[in-house]
Amino acid sequence: ACPTGTGSGTTIFTEVTALAQRTGAVNLGQGFPDTDGPPAMLEAARTAIAAGANQYPPLAGLPELREAIVTQRALRYGTHYDVDTEVLVTTGATEALAAALLAHCAPDDEVIVFEPYYDSYAASIALAGGRRRVVPMRPDATGRFGFDPDDLSAAVSHRSRVLLLNSPHNPTGTVFDAEELAAIADCCRRNDLVAVTDEVYEYLTYDGAVHTPLATLPGMRERTLSISSAGKTFSATGWKVGWVCGPAHLVEPVRRVKQYLTFASGTAFQVAVAQALGTQQPWVRAQAARLQTNRDRLRASLVATGLTPYVCQGTYFLQADIRALGTADGIRFCRELPHRAGVAAIPSAVFYDDPADGLPIVRFVFCKKPEVLDEAARRLAGLT
Amino acid sequence: ACPTGTGSGTTIFTEVTALAQRTGAVNLGQGFPDTDGPPAMLEAARTAIAAGANQYPPLAGLPELREAIVTQRALRYGTHYDVDTEVLVTTGATEALAAALLAHCAPDDEVIVFEPYYDSYAASIALAGGRRRVVPMRPDATGRFGFDPDDLSAAVSHRSRVLLLNSPHNPTGTVFDAEELAAIADCCRRNDLVAVTDEVYEYLTYDGAVHTPLATLPGMRERTLSISSAGKTFSATGWKVGWVCGPAHLVEPVRRVKQYLTFASGTAFQVAVAQALGTQQPWVRAQAARLQTNRDRLRASLVATGLTPYVCQGTYFLQADIRALGTADGIRFCRELPHRAGVAAIPSAVFYDDPADGLPIVRFVFCKKPEVLDEAARRLAGLT
Ligand SMILES: CSCCC(=O)C(=O)O
Ligand SMILES: CSCCC(=O)C(=O)O
Repeated sequence: ACPTGTGSGTTIFTEVTALAQRTGAVNLGQGFPDTDGPPAMLEAARTAIAAGANQYPPLAGLPELREAIVTQRALRYGTHYDVDTEVLVTTGATEALAAALLAHCAPDDEVIVFEPYYDSYAASIALAGGRRRVVPMRPDATGRFGFDPDDLSAAVSHRSRVLLLNSPHNPTGTVFDAEELAAIADCCRRNDLVAVTDEVYEYLTYDGAVHTPLATLPGMRERTLSISSAGKTFSATGWKVGWVCGPAHLVEPVRRVKQYLTFASGTAFQVAVAQALGTQQPWVRAQAARLQTNRDRLRASLVATGLTPYVCQGTYFLQADIRALGTADGIRFCRELPHRAGVAAIPSAVFYDDPADGLPIVRFVFCKKPEVLDEAARRLAGLT
Repeated sequence: ACPTGTGSGTTIFTEVTALAQRTGAVNLGQGFPDTDGPPAMLEAARTAIAAGANQYPPLAGLPELREAIVTQRALRYGTHYDVDTEVLVTTGATEALAAALLAHCAPDDEVIVFEPYYDSYAASIALAGGRRRVVPMRPDATGRFGFDPDDLSAAVSHRSRVLLLNSPHNPTGTVFDAEELAAIADCCRRNDLVAVTDEVYEYLTYDGAVHTPLATLPGMRERTLSISSAGKTFSATGWKVGWVCGPAHLVEPVRRVKQYLTFASGTAFQVAVAQALGTQQPWVRAQAARLQTNRDRLRASLVATGLTPYVCQGTYFLQADIRALGTADGIRFCRELPHRAGVAAIPSAVFYDDPADGLPIVRFVFCKKPEVLDEAARRLAGLT
């Protein structure tokens, strides 16, 4: 049970959650909230079950959910998608990603991905027989992770086919800014890449940081598959209602793959999410504000412990450098932390091709109740 | 919108359901019931949502569900599986099948499958880069579909790696008997094949036909992945709670793939299915009895219409030969049927490598309310 992520055959999140349970540690590892989503949404799911929404939904998803997704993106971002051919409901963003890569990446095609990257990206690329080319993200003087456009250019070859962008970004908390997005869009257009964007934290941004979908940049709508989900937006990670929007010629191949991965799932949850997208935006805004406060609370306790937090503009995650504590080995640190301090976290090393590149960085979640974060702070204070 | 299944990029079920909706036809195409599962199970799901079972379940599934699955298989079939390493909950049987093939079939490996076969089999084999080798099933003098052991032997080569068995069998309704299973087990042992068994209709057998898992045959437990789900057993096809049981060395690779297809889904549904497996067996028996009555009702109306039904020992499906109506083209027949008679059905041709091999056969479902089947009968009576 060594949380190294690679080679173990089990996701790091599963390992660390199991370790936290065994040791009774406060689990700041896997990204899921410990409070529920909007009560009206839960009630809508319960009502739908009672009303008989228990058989297959349509393969593409319930029409009312596709309608709500398209409406929400139009209102929020000004992008327009056809309800029948340009939006597909999936079993969470994970299935959308897997299906998008299986559909659009042929064996030996190259996929560009920003590093550190969420673990399922590498696995989905491998499943499609593709090759991963990483663009390193590094902290600037303020502690915000970004990338060097020259590194992006260097990652491109004649075999490049897909660019995978996650913004707001897990695990760094970066919300890609206008300049970064322009460079990425330019790269996609020049090299005729399909962009696959994982936007599951689209609503969870802080301090006024603005999430801009890559698809809204000039020339990008026609080459972008935008993926999001209800899990993070509405604190329902176990519902696994996700979706992908894009031009019909890119969505159709995803549908073909997706129909044989799970067919279609979660009928009653689809009913409830359709309602929530239309009615629960105030709840979502309040949730983002709560998360920002939580982030600040966690940041303060990490600083008090002697860790050095990086900048977090969005997501559930705050990364910190551990070197001021006299060690540079985050993997070992995370393996020992539950025992030493009763807190569990993820070594960011698992999000790198070469773990050495992220070794002194540890990722903590702050999507937990304030009292849980305070308990973690008390426990971390005992670290010496 | 021609329901040919092949080349269209959309499953035949989606096409025919859409066609039925457009034309107002009674939909005897896609296999889903029009009545709900046990009320206590629905109530358990509702309670679980209210109680906060809305975040990720463990990757392998909730412990209580894994426990219930293992207990049920032990009671019913006498097979024993370790709760921690030999059972994995999936997003329906479809995901279990896709993950099993991606895990155990390498590019150019051959997969043996009995024809006609459920459409996702061919797609999952193709996704894994494998090659399909079919063993034809043909009706005997009584109208029951079976296979010739010589055809099974002929399908094997040094490249054979996986044998896929669906029993009770969709679309033929065959429940493979002791002799057939012995021949299949023998083939698997001799050729060192991994057996993947789709047993989603395990409880839905009629006239005393007995479902025997291939895993219970001598030497088979160690080489078999047994797949089932709650969808058909508990009339909850939209919940997508499935599972796979097998020896740890076969289950572990499936888990590795599955975690990146959807991670894990349907927490509250998992709670409810765990309860239902332990408490709702009387409901399931009553449901099987209702389905048997429905089958007889449908069979009588097909006969009255001039169609020639085959033997159905299990599943939701009854096949019939249309030649007595003066046509041998089931694809055309199914395309016209909603317009001519206001009934939708599936041409069995879509379940064959070469549609010509199943051309005069049409599949009807009987998992519908008696009054719906009666309405279909009235409409079919108008066919001339
Ligand atoms: C599917 S478990 C991982 C949850 C998550 O998004 C994270 O912790 O990064
Ligand atoms: C996933 S839709 C198909 C339902 C079914 O099992 C069938 O009709 O054969």
